[in-house]
Amino acid sequence: MTKKLVFGHQNPDTDTIASAIAAAYLVHKAFGDETEAVALGTPNAETQYALDYFKFEPLRVITEADTKQVVLVDHNEAAQSVANLADVEIAGVYDHHKINFTSNAPIWFNNQPLGSVATILYYEFKSHDIEIPEEIAGMMTSAIVSDTLLLKSPTTTSFDQPALEALADIAGIEDYEAYGLAMLKAGTDLSKRSAKELIDGDAKSFDFAGNVFRIGQVNTVDIEDALTRQSEIEEAMKAEDFDNFLFVITDILNSNSKAIYLGDNSDAVEKAFNGKLVNHVIDLPGVVSRKKQVVPPLTAAF
Amino acid sequence: MTKKLVFGHQNPDTDTIASAIAAAYLVHKAFGDETEAVALGTPNAETQYALDYFKFEPLRVITEADTKQVVLVDHNEAAQSVANLADVEIAGVYDHHKINFTSNAPIWFNNQPLGSVATILYYEFKSHDIEIPEEIAGMMTSAIVSDTLLLKSPTTTSFDQPALEALADIAGIEDYEAYGLAMLKAGTDLSKRSAKELIDGDAKSFDFAGNVFRIGQVNTVDIEDALTRQSEIEEAMKAEDFDNFLFVITDILNSNSKAIYLGDNSDAVEKAFNGKLVNHVIDLPGVVSRKKQVVPPLTAAF
Repeated sequence: MTKKLVFGHQNPDTDTIASAIAAAYLVHKAFGDETEAVALGTPNAETQYALDYFKFEPLRVITEADTKQVVLVDHNEAAQSVANLADVEIAGVYDHHKINFTSNAPIWFNNQPLGSVATILYYEFKSHDIEIPEEIAGMMTSAIVSDTLLLKSPTTTSFDQPALEALADIAGIEDYEAYGLAMLKAGTDLSKRSAKELIDGDAKSFDFAGNVFRIGQVNTVDIEDALTRQSEIEEAMKAEDFDNFLFVITDILNSNSKAIYLGDNSDAVEKAFNGKLVNHVIDLPGVVSRKKQVVPPLTAAF
Repeated sequence: MTKKLVFGHQNPDTDTIASAIAAAYLVHKAFGDETEAVALGTPNAETQYALDYFKFEPLRVITEADTKQVVLVDHNEAAQSVANLADVEIAGVYDHHKINFTSNAPIWFNNQPLGSVATILYYEFKSHDIEIPEEIAGMMTSAIVSDTLLLKSPTTTSFDQPALEALADIAGIEDYEAYGLAMLKAGTDLSKRSAKELIDGDAKSFDFAGNVFRIGQVNTVDIEDALTRQSEIEEAMKAEDFDNFLFVITDILNSNSKAIYLGDNSDAVEKAFNGKLVNHVIDLPGVVSRKKQVVPPLTAAF
C-alpha cells in the first residue's frame, strides 16, 4: 500500500492543520493506508496554542509532495496546494470550499457546506464507526472554534454545534467556550508580528469584474490598538503592489470589523459596505466572515 | 424551503433509480427539504422487476428540471443530465464516477469509488442516524446487486458487501443471492426488446483523444443467443450515426463479454482488448465492467 501524504492549503490555519491530522488518522483506520499529516507552512500563533495544548509536535513542512498519492483537506484547487499536484495522484479530498476539480476516476471526494472541515470529518468518523483519540478530538474542537469563531460566524451551520460539543466531550474539555476564547486570543497577539506578516497571513486574491482585489484579515480583541499601527500597515500594503488591497481587522469578542482600503475604487467599497472611508478606514459592523460578508457585497458592488 | 428534484443519469439503470429514491428520502430527513425523486427515462426490465417487487410506482420522467434546485445521483457531468442543468442550482451530488465539476460555492458533493451509489447512501444514512424504510432498503439492495453483479464485478469494494447484507436484512430479503439472480435474469430477456432498445438501453458517449465513442452494454445469460440478432443490431447501431459504436454483450453467469464494434478505429479496439475483430465481433474474456475494463483500455489505446 502506497503511503499517502495528507495536507491542507498554503498559509495553514487551525482547521487546515487539525483536519490534516484527523484525516490522516481516519484514512489509516478506515482503509489501512499508511498516512502522514504534513503542512504547507508553519503554524500560526492560534494553531500553535492548540498544538501545544494537545501535545502535538508541529507537522513536517513541505512545498512539494514526496509520495505518489495524496489526500487534500480544506482545499481542492491546485493554486492553493503543493507545487507538484499535477504529478501526483489525489486519492481523496475533504473540503468545504467551492469546487473546481476533475479526476480520471472516481475518488473519495467529500465536500460539504459546513463551518469547518473538522465538522465533516467528525461525521466521517461516525459513519465508519471509528473512535476518535482524545488529542485528535481536541484539535478538531479547536478547528471548529477557529473557523466558526465559537459558532458566531455566519458560516456556522446546524451541523457544527453538535460536532463541537461531541468532540469537546471526547477531548475532555469541560468548558469549550473558555478553551476556545483562550485559543482565539492566542492568535490575536498582533504586537509580535510585523505589518507584512499581518497583511500576508491570511490574504487571498479575488477578481471583481476584472479588478484584482487582495483581501487580508486578522483577528484581534482590540481593533483600535491594531489601528495605532495604521501607517506602518499601509506602507506594507503599498509595497505588495496590488491595485486594490482591503485589510480587514476583526474583533472576535464583539463580532465587528474595520477595514483599511488602498486603491482607486473607494466608491465601490463604500457602496458594498454602505459606509464611508475616513482616512482609508471603513466601519464594518457585524462583519466577521470574508467568505460570507466581505466577498459577496464586493462582488455585487462591481 | 425550495423543493429539490433528485435524479440520476439518462438511460437510467437500477442504481440510478434506487439512489434517486433513497437520496430523496435522505435529503428530506436530514435537511428537512421537500424532495421528489424523478428519472430521465423509463425503467429497464431489471429495474422494473425491483420496483414491482418492492411495490414502487415508476418515477415521473423529465428531460428538464422544473425546480430551481436539484440533487444529482450516479452522475456529475452535465452531458449525462437534464438539458437545463446550467440554469438550475445543484445543491448536492452523490456519485461514484470520475469527477468533472465546478461550483461557485461549497455544496454537498459526495463521490466515493464504491460499487454503487446505493452503498454510499447506506453509509450516509448511518452517519446521520436515519432509519432506512424497508422498501427503500429493498431498492438499495437491488442497486448494489445490479452494479456489482452480485459482488462479482471488479468494481466491487470491501464496503459493498457489508452494505448489501445490512440492507437486505432491513428489507427482509432472506436470501439476497436468490433475489439478486432473479432480478438480474429479469433484465436479460433480450427477446422482447428491439435492437434499438438493446443498444440504447445503457449507452453512454465518451471522448477518447477527440474520437466520439458510443458504448452500450446489455447483460444476458447466453451471449451466442444474443448474437443471432447481430445483423439487426448492427443496422440499429449504424442508424444512430456515431463515428464509433461499441456494443458489449455480457454473460452475467460466467463473467465474460463479447462486443460488436462499428467504426474506423479497429486497430485501437484490437489493441485495447488484445484481441481480433472477426466479423465486427471481439472476445472480451473476463470483462464485465464498462467503467473498469472497457473505458480504461480504450483510453490507453488512443
